[in-house]
Formats: sequence, structure tokens, C-alpha cells
Amino acid sequence: MTSMAGLWVDVTVQGWAGHPCNFVNAFPVILLDLLPAKNGEEATMQFLLELVDILTNYVRKTFDRSTKVLDFHHPHQLLEGMEGFNLELSDQPESLEQILVDCRDTLKYGVRTGHPRFFNQLSTGLDIIGLAGEWLTSTANTNMFTYEIAPVFVLMEQLTLKKMREIIGWPSGEGDGIFSPGGAISNMYSVMIARYKYFPEVKTKGMSAAPRLVLFTSEHSHYSIKKAGAALGFGSENVVLLSTDERGRVIPADLEAKILDVKQKGYHPLFVNATAGSTVYGAFDPINEIADICEKYNMWLHVDGAWGGGLLMSRKHRHKFSGVERANSVTWNPHKMMGVPLQCSAILVREKGILAGCNSMCAGYLFQPDKQYDVSYDTGDKAIQCGRHVDIFKFWLMWKAKGTVGFEQHIDKCLDLSQYLYDKIRNREGYEMVFEGVPQHTNVCFWYIPPSLRGMEHNSKEYREKLHKVAPNIKAMMMESGTTMVGYQPQGQKVNFFRMVISNPAALQSDIDFLIDEIERLGRDL
Amino acid sequence: MTSMAGLWVDVTVQGWAGHPCNFVNAFPVILLDLLPAKNGEEATMQFLLELVDILTNYVRKTFDRSTKVLDFHHPHQLLEGMEGFNLELSDQPESLEQILVDCRDTLKYGVRTGHPRFFNQLSTGLDIIGLAGEWLTSTANTNMFTYEIAPVFVLMEQLTLKKMREIIGWPSGEGDGIFSPGGAISNMYSVMIARYKYFPEVKTKGMSAAPRLVLFTSEHSHYSIKKAGAALGFGSENVVLLSTDERGRVIPADLEAKILDVKQKGYHPLFVNATAGSTVYGAFDPINEIADICEKYNMWLHVDGAWGGGLLMSRKHRHKFSGVERANSVTWNPHKMMGVPLQCSAILVREKGILAGCNSMCAGYLFQPDKQYDVSYDTGDKAIQCGRHVDIFKFWLMWKAKGTVGFEQHIDKCLDLSQYLYDKIRNREGYEMVFEGVPQHTNVCFWYIPPSLRGMEHNSKEYREKLHKVAPNIKAMMMESGTTMVGYQPQGQKVNFFRMVISNPAALQSDIDFLIDEIERLGRDL
Repeated sequence: MTSMAGLWVDVTVQGWAGHPCNFVNAFPVILLDLLPAKNGEEATMQFLLELVDILTNYVRKTFDRSTKVLDFHHPHQLLEGMEGFNLELSDQPESLEQILVDCRDTLKYGVRTGHPRFFNQLSTGLDIIGLAGEWLTSTANTNMFTYEIAPVFVLMEQLTLKKMREIIGWPSGEGDGIFSPGGAISNMYSVMIARYKYFPEVKTKGMSAAPRLVLFTSEHSHYSIKKAGAALGFGSENVVLLSTDERGRVIPADLEAKILDVKQKGYHPLFVNATAGSTVYGAFDPINEIADICEKYNMWLHVDGAWGGGLLMSRKHRHKFSGVERANSVTWNPHKMMGVPLQCSAILVREKGILAGCNSMCAGYLFQPDKQYDVSYDTGDKAIQCGRHVDIFKFWLMWKAKGTVGFEQHIDKCLDLSQYLYDKIRNREGYEMVFEGVPQHTNVCFWYIPPSLRGMEHNSKEYREKLHKVAPNIKAMMMESGTTMVGYQPQGQKVNFFRMVISNPAALQSDIDFLIDEIERLGRDL
Repeated sequence: MTSMAGLWVDVTVQGWAGHPCNFVNAFPVILLDLLPAKNGEEATMQFLLELVDILTNYVRKTFDRSTKVLDFHHPHQLLEGMEGFNLELSDQPESLEQILVDCRDTLKYGVRTGHPRFFNQLSTGLDIIGLAGEWLTSTANTNMFTYEIAPVFVLMEQLTLKKMREIIGWPSGEGDGIFSPGGAISNMYSVMIARYKYFPEVKTKGMSAAPRLVLFTSEHSHYSIKKAGAALGFGSENVVLLSTDERGRVIPADLEAKILDVKQKGYHPLFVNATAGSTVYGAFDPINEIADICEKYNMWLHVDGAWGGGLLMSRKHRHKFSGVERANSVTWNPHKMMGVPLQCSAILVREKGILAGCNSMCAGYLFQPDKQYDVSYDTGDKAIQCGRHVDIFKFWLMWKAKGTVGFEQHIDKCLDLSQYLYDKIRNREGYEMVFEGVPQHTNVCFWYIPPSLRGMEHNSKEYREKLHKVAPNIKAMMMESGTTMVGYQPQGQKVNFFRMVISNPAALQSDIDFLIDEIERLGRDL
């Protein structure tokens, strides 16, 4: 066993389970010295400070462009065990020294999602205030189901949801809502509530109490609508996919035609999902035109702003949400564009009380009516969960620290950066844009065409097959070299292309330049 | 603005938004000094260390019996704003000093769920290793959906689930599973998978593709089964509640009778939930007898061990799970009895591959088949979520630090303590047990009878009405004085009684003594 970074001198003692450990002074060599052990304070503080040292070092390196984004290993390599790092669990305890080594190694073999050159997902960045919020949340270690055990967090959630509803534009911020474990679950809530609104008897009698219900969503929308359709008993075939224009936006006439088709078959069109910021193209469906159709056919309108939601806070960009106040429900994930640590997703609903109506089961052992405080603050019964993680605090704290204006600045900066990338590559040799025009969100979708492919006939099978392999090949090399990360995927008939997204507050123009240089360096000889 | 605890001298400068701030040396007075700002390292480290100081002080006090469990305030009091603590969000940023004050106040007005005298929920305690795990998890801030961005965590989840399946007793630990955002969602998974197993076409065609499906669960079981029935389109009326014996355990003959009744009506009995550790009584349903019936009628057997699961790790107590290896699926929440910080819940499934079959939608933009590594490790598509919080690390780290034997010791100790409480009060004047005999889990359910009620006729309406108010009254006073917390609820025809549960590793016999003294002190004159 090696001594850690000079923190311990090499004095070997026997730990709890007979493992030899190294320690200096009073460093806690055994688990049983930690709190709640009697006089365990000092040992606990030392252990936690050792950990904080590891964590702050990681934070420091995360923002250091000279460090790698990742140190890639294949699953079998990590499973076989790296030097001093073994994932297997055992009957006997490890020493606390080894625990700290495990912590260091876990970070070492992971991915620095806060690195200024990590562009791989919609959620990137490491906000220091958000991080502080998460550390506090885990120290408080409580549960959102009752005011009784989460008084401050329950109120923070209530106030923050109201603020979000005000920003959406619902009168006085009235309505309902809850933080859920991610956008897919938030979208699932919207489908459940829509069903409850029009066919409340399904709650007790099941789907057989309703006619055949149909959901509509764009072919570019997130797969969670289809998953919700399958899970909630509609069936994925009753999720009708809508055609989009070249930019990935729903064509309202297609929606109306498909509604009429469904009605003609004798089914019931229930719900339309309008995506505000699609996953791949960053497209915003035309909410107002969709809302007109929903009103005409008396349907529920949900806006999936999981990715786009942040733009509501920007005076410059919120026009892309024009009509959102007409929606019945909105998904909005602060953990994406707004840089809040994972998980933080809200489902917001215009009609007050409907969440509880839809989900409550009135479990007397948890939600006692005879408490000494106003039990309307016990919000647990409106969730599909029982216990619920505290996702609100980090978001509330970031809002306090940045103000609404701080979020606005962050959003505007990310969109400016994406425009910078767009301007840089749209006429650059070796690049082809997947769709024309300035992206609506920070998604910039493009093919990189290596020199060997540039003269080829674009419609040929050979060209398409070769181009399809370019992005995966470059991505694999990128991950091996660990310098940057960006996503790729096919879309419909389009072969693999890069999807660049920017939500990372640490990213600068020079990082965009770096990405392009890196793509060209790695792809040049393909 | 007051200077904090001597940490800053009173030098007032203008912060970002013009707020006056106090600072000492290079303490970061403005948000824009923090990373990713250029040269932001020092400011960031100082800010985080200030926070850690607040957090470690909180940890220290949590274990200090001379501090209160909570400092109770009504919702309106907190909403009106306490001195220096205002929950409202604003357009403009606050100073970082105020942010730290907000952190301190959030903890101050919260509930110390790790306090040795907090017995209010199934999840109690503050495990230092688990806390360390959560701090690291939030620093890593990644997402479980792909190996690509969570290589270490994905493997840890896989190994840990296998270990849990081995402990359940499935051959070679084979099978499937996933960590979900809580026991209710895990139970919902079990219902979805059961439906998929017997009626896979429901995934595409909806509930109309199946006969009327019926779920069975005990009247003492967790309400999440009913919620799942409502949400997934079965309808809550198709969740049949089973009668229990005096101890809250399902009566197998009642299950069989109700299955036959359902069949006679032409409906299809699909699924039985056997509870292993019920919420109120801590009862274990007889799994083997229920499994016999499930085999006879070709039904899915789910074991809800959300609360009881930890007992599987105790050689002394795991006999209560006898037959669990015959289950098709098991819910097991390490965040309850095993003291892992919230959230940490697993759904474990005997049949391999069925989770993906049930839930996958094969979203090409996320789960690309042409990656350079073995994409069978991209487990996201088997979840109903898309993004998924990293719940595994803290649990894995605790397992490393304690070993299986450490969890066993913790479980055995909690059950010993609960036996101590049971022995202490079962013949004590002024107490009446809700059910006879040693509890199966750590749940000790009892009425405290104040002296004024002791002579009364137990069956009289007046007695029942008075007794019904005793627990809420004592609980309210307990919360006002902040000395300890324990739950209460009615159950069926039984008026409000205390439900004591012990999962807190910090609790000692003296804390049990304290609770009883406190109940008597507060309830004496009722």
C-alpha cells in the first residue's frame, strides 16, 4: 500500500479488519473512528478535509485546459482493475486510506464534464455555486415529501416554481408543478395529467374507461414522449410522429391532417407535444400555430422545453417560445442550458391542483391531516414518487447568486458562441451544414468532409457510407486522445454528423477554435 | 450586513451588482471571480472552503446530542423571512457573502435527519462515507445514460447490482436491474416489466391489447403499487388489496381466494406484490407461500423490499426473506435501512434483458451503435428516464468502506435497539402495543396513554377520540421543542399511534430512553 501524496508517514497499524494502514498524527485510519463514534469529530473532519482536497484539486484541473477531458479505458480494462483501483466489492472493509485512493481514482478514470472543451451533452459545465448547493443538499440529506422534514426546501421549491410560471407568462404565476428526476419523467407527467384532465376515470378504472387515445409529437422530438406512451398504457403506436420542415420544426398543417385522420378512425386525439429546443437540431416548434390547433380540437398542449427552457430567461431569445403561455404544461430542465448540476427538471402546469388530483392516493401514514402546521405544504402526494430527492436547493442558490440577469447573460453568451461556430464553419472548406440558416438554439450540426472525400459525388452510395464513418472515427480518436468531446448521430436519412452544443459557461471562442482544429487534425487523413 | 463569525474584517467594497460586501484578504466578494474566471482558482478554493466550514460545523452539531433536531417554524414564518434570510428570488445577484449566509440559514431552519434522536422516517442518519460519496458524485456531475460519459459509475452499478442479485440468491447473480429515483419508481418498474413479460404487445398497442389486468398487494403495502396501477393505465380499482393477519402479513388464502374471484369475473390476475418490511408495522409477507400461489396461477411475483431489503445482508435476519429467490423482481432501497444517503433505490429483475425489452426506444442520437467500445454498457435505454442521476457511487463507496460485514453489523444493531425499545415498553405503565410479539423489523408501534385516559373504557368513543389526538399533540410539542422526532399515523380502524423506526447508526439505547422520557414528559398532562 502506497502512502498518499506525502500526507501520511509510513506508520503501519492494524485497521478494523486487520488491513495495514498508514497514518500521520490523528488521521483516522479506521472507519470506526468516524462519527457517530465518541470523540469522532476530529477524525471525521480530517477525513472530510482530505476528501475536499481531492475534490478541489479535481475542480481546479477541470478548468485547466492543459488537462485532458478524459483518460479513456475500455470497459474490460476497468473491470480487470487498474493499478490500485479495483471495482469489486468485498465482505471485508477497506482502510480509509484506500477509500480516499478509490475516490481519487474514480475521478481519474471518469470524464470531466465541466472541462471547457467538453461539448458532448446538453448538460455540461461545473457551476461552483451549483456545486456548493449540491454539497449542502447531500449534507442535509432529507426528502421532499413533507414540510415536516424539509421545511426550507419545500418552500424554495414552491417559490421557484412560481417564478418559473411567471416567466412562462401564466397570470400571477398561478398553477402547479414539481421538480422531477429528469425531463423524461417530466414529460411523462404531462401525458398523465392530460389524460386525467380529459378522462379522470382512467385513474381508477384504467385505460379501458377511455376511447383509444392518441398523442402527437414531432419526429425530431425526444424519445421520452414515446416511452411515456408505452409505459402509461397508450401504446407506442398511438404516439403519432409529425413531419417537420428542413430545420426540424413541426409543420402545423401536418399536425392538423394527422388529427383529422385519427378522428376519422374513431380514435381520440388527446395531447400534442411541441418541442422547444429539439435534441439534435435545437429546433423550436411553432407554439402559437400548434396552440391554435389544440384549441380547435380541444387537446392538451405540452411544451417540452427541457433543453430550450433556459432561453425563456433571455430577453433576446425568448421570442422563440412565443405562445408558450398558451400551453397547458411545460417541461423545463435547469440542469441543461442553465448549468445547474444534475438532476434538476421541472414540470410546470397551468391548472392548479391537477397534479394532486391526478396522482394523490392519500396515504395516511405519511400525510397526516392532523399536524400542527398547514399541511397544504406537504406536497409529496402529488408526485408519482414517494420519497423525492432535493433538487431545488442548488438551483435556488444559483438564482440567488446570479440573479435572473446572470442566467440571461449565460444564455446569451452560449448562443453568441454557437453563432461564432456557425459563422466560422459555414463557408469553410471541408464543412457542410446539416441545415441552412442560423441555428435557433446552440446546436450546430455539420459534417466534416475529409480531403479524400471532397471530390466525390455526394449522392453516391460510397460517399454516404464513407461519410457515415467519419464522425464516429474522429470521435473515437478524440476520446483516445482525450482532448475534447462532441456528439454525433444520424438523423432520418442523413448519415452521421457532428452535433455541437454549447451550455458550458467555461467555453470560450478559443475552445471552439480548438475543437475545429482537433476535428481537422484527427480527420485529415481519413 | 453583518460580518460572518469573525471570518471577514469589515471592509466594504462594491460587489458585482453593487451590493456592499465584506471580505478579508483575497476572499472572493464577487461571483465573477470564481472559476471559470481567469485566475479564479484561489477565489474558488476559498469560497468552497468557507462552505465546507459551514458544512462540517453542521455535521459536527448533527451528532451532538445537546443540539436540537430542528428549530421549528411555520411556513408563513419562513415565507415572511427570518432575520437575514429571505427565500425570494430576484433579478439581481446577491453577494457571495450573502450566499454563504443563505447556506448557513438553510441548514439552521432545516431538520437534522442525521441527529441520533431523529427517528421520523425510514431514512435517517448521516453516514460520513456516504456523504463523501455524494460530495464526489456532485463534483463529477455526470449522467448514467452512457458508458461514454460515466465509465466508472456504469461499471460500479453493474457490479453492485450483480452483488445484490447474488445476495437475493439468483444463480450466479444473473439477471437485470437498475438504480431508480426511489422505491415508488422501482415498484412501478416491476409492474411495467410484469405486463411486458405476459403482454408484450401492450408496449406498442396499449392496454387495449390485453384483457383486464389485475394487481394484488396487501392493504398494509406501500401506496406506490396503487399509484403505479393508476399511472400505468391499469386503474387503481384493478389493484386488489389483500387482507392481513394481526401482524400486518398477507394471508395467502385470501390471495388465492381473490385471484379466483378475479378469474371468475373474466379478468387476468397478473402480478402479486409481497411486501418485505411494511411501512408501518415492518411486516414481512410470507414469500414462499405467495410464490407457490404465483406459480400455480402463472403470475409475476414482486417483492417490495424497499424498507426490508437491508435485512438480506444479515445472517441473523435474512430468514424473513425466505423464498425471495423465487421472486421475479425485487425492490431494495439502500437509502433506507442501510443508511445510504438519499436517493438510492434498486429494482432487481431475475430475467436478463427484460428491462431493455420493456423500455428501449433505440434513440439513435444517444445510443449510437458505432462507438469504439462495447455499447452493451450503454444502459440508458432500459430506463424510463433518459438522463439518470448517479446514485451508485455513495453506495459502492460505503460497501467498500464497511464491507458486507459492516452492513450486517449495522442492521443487527438497529434490530437489537428496536428489541430494546420493545422490551422496555411492552409491559410499561401507560403503553399499549399495536400488535403483539417481537416486531419483524425495527418498527415498534405503540400507543402512549396519558394518565388522564388510563382508567377509561377502551372501546368507548370518547376514549378513541381522545387517544387519537395524543400522538399528534405530543408530536407537535416535540417539534416545537425540537428535542426528538418520531412518526405517527392511524392504520385501518386503529387510531393514531406512534411508529418508531430505527435505521440511524448514531442511535444508542440512551436515545431510546430519551425518546420515552420525552413522550412521557410531553404527554403526561394531556
